[in-house]
Amino acid sequence: MKVVYTISEVRELVKQYKRDGLKVGFVPTMGYLHEGHGSLIKRAKDENDIVIVSTFVNPIQFGPNEDLDKYPRDQKRDEEVCETYGGDVMFLPSVEEMYPEERKTTVTVEGLTAGLCGAKRPGHFNGVTTVVTKLFNIVLPDRAYFGQKDAQQLMVIKKMVRDLNSPVEVIGCPIVREEDGLAKSSRNKYLGEEERKAALVLSRGLKEAKKAIDNGEKVSKNVISIISDVINKEPLAKIDYVSIVDINTMEDVEEIGSGVLIAMAVYIGKTRLIDNIILE
Amino acid sequence: MKVVYTISEVRELVKQYKRDGLKVGFVPTMGYLHEGHGSLIKRAKDENDIVIVSTFVNPIQFGPNEDLDKYPRDQKRDEEVCETYGGDVMFLPSVEEMYPEERKTTVTVEGLTAGLCGAKRPGHFNGVTTVVTKLFNIVLPDRAYFGQKDAQQLMVIKKMVRDLNSPVEVIGCPIVREEDGLAKSSRNKYLGEEERKAALVLSRGLKEAKKAIDNGEKVSKNVISIISDVINKEPLAKIDYVSIVDINTMEDVEEIGSGVLIAMAVYIGKTRLIDNIILE
Repeated sequence: MKVVYTISEVRELVKQYKRDGLKVGFVPTMGYLHEGHGSLIKRAKDENDIVIVSTFVNPIQFGPNEDLDKYPRDQKRDEEVCETYGGDVMFLPSVEEMYPEERKTTVTVEGLTAGLCGAKRPGHFNGVTTVVTKLFNIVLPDRAYFGQKDAQQLMVIKKMVRDLNSPVEVIGCPIVREEDGLAKSSRNKYLGEEERKAALVLSRGLKEAKKAIDNGEKVSKNVISIISDVINKEPLAKIDYVSIVDINTMEDVEEIGSGVLIAMAVYIGKTRLIDNIILE
Repeated sequence: MKVVYTISEVRELVKQYKRDGLKVGFVPTMGYLHEGHGSLIKRAKDENDIVIVSTFVNPIQFGPNEDLDKYPRDQKRDEEVCETYGGDVMFLPSVEEMYPEERKTTVTVEGLTAGLCGAKRPGHFNGVTTVVTKLFNIVLPDRAYFGQKDAQQLMVIKKMVRDLNSPVEVIGCPIVREEDGLAKSSRNKYLGEEERKAALVLSRGLKEAKKAIDNGEKVSKNVISIISDVINKEPLAKIDYVSIVDINTMEDVEEIGSGVLIAMAVYIGKTRLIDNIILE
């Protein structure tokens, strides 16, 4: 596996791959790779000749009071995970490489970014869509892979790609969970022992919701109550939001039909975790 | 010369060109091609193997009270001009082809768009940067050619391309003028006979300004007065703005040094014309 740090290096590699007629799959990440990322890399490897993984902690998608400075970083571990799952190139640009001069350009997606994490993290999605546009322009992948754990991000990027005619196919991949149900996340590293146990309320809340819906519950408000009750029983947990939205518009739905996303963000101590299920 | 109407057709052609190792030059226009566009096409042909010209009257860069509906269109004439100057492909997408669903994504460039035409035409540059991003993603050119007549647009697009790492080289080309000095523009078609004569105040104002500066005038305010005096003498002309700005920041300069843009927009009757000179 190659590890490259500059835009010109990755461009040179991609140029050669394209010359050789190879298909390029791309997995953009913020590093501190776990099995969730691994599943994206593996899927990309299954569907393409070459897999490029970027590990860039993108400062412009963090708010002023968020965890940019303490976001976990471990290049060696990332290289191991990347190689294990079939990555061919790991691209680790520095902040200076990605933002060498004062940036004036922003890619925004309206509507889809108004609720859920977009409402709670102002500016976050502008940072995501801008850096993803940059990375797509650098890597020029045939396909790009995103996890469904960030369901809103996935839908925002799909919309952006359609709106801007980006020459890339965006593929969403299922959430990977720990054995006890906790969704894999780089931020799980922040959790202390007690918090790690408390964090199960997210997946447990979703499980209870799913059970109620399978038993005929159709009213969003009631399902949100069921989830909230599970979470509120846990003293270390504090709800940021629990929402039930249309998967395409990200707008609240009052009644649960098909194409619905049940999404939540919950603070466990100081750590903000997200989880969701999609009802097709 | 090929004339294509759909994104998939132009993509298919470009794919083949790239497979054949050919360099693609791109001239994005709103059609009603004149010798100014011709000079861009010729330059693109000199520097690339293939030249693609788009002629798309982009609705999202027009304000509600602007001339979208009456903007001149003439496909036959466009094909002739395009072919004459060496165009290989003319791409004429419909509005539905470019905007098939409700658009939520916008590319914005701040700062550079605040003054001059950006101040007078709110939303105009967002429409330009968004459609140019789309066209770049569709055509995937090696080089793209823009006229210096829209000097602010040229600088905005150069900045956007740097900020977003777009894999394209942006090349600005000199203004082409009628024999009497009027800058070539599709909008010159709107001018009646008297207005056509009156329109000379733009280039004449710039000429007077240049003369004063060559004779040692350094104060922007004074140069703007000289230009304004020329224009205000013409009853059919009404100044929209006359500005002297730093070519890189598009911010007003009080004193005239190097790297300065003298730009103006002037209504001749109902027709808004622009012109400028750059002092290197």
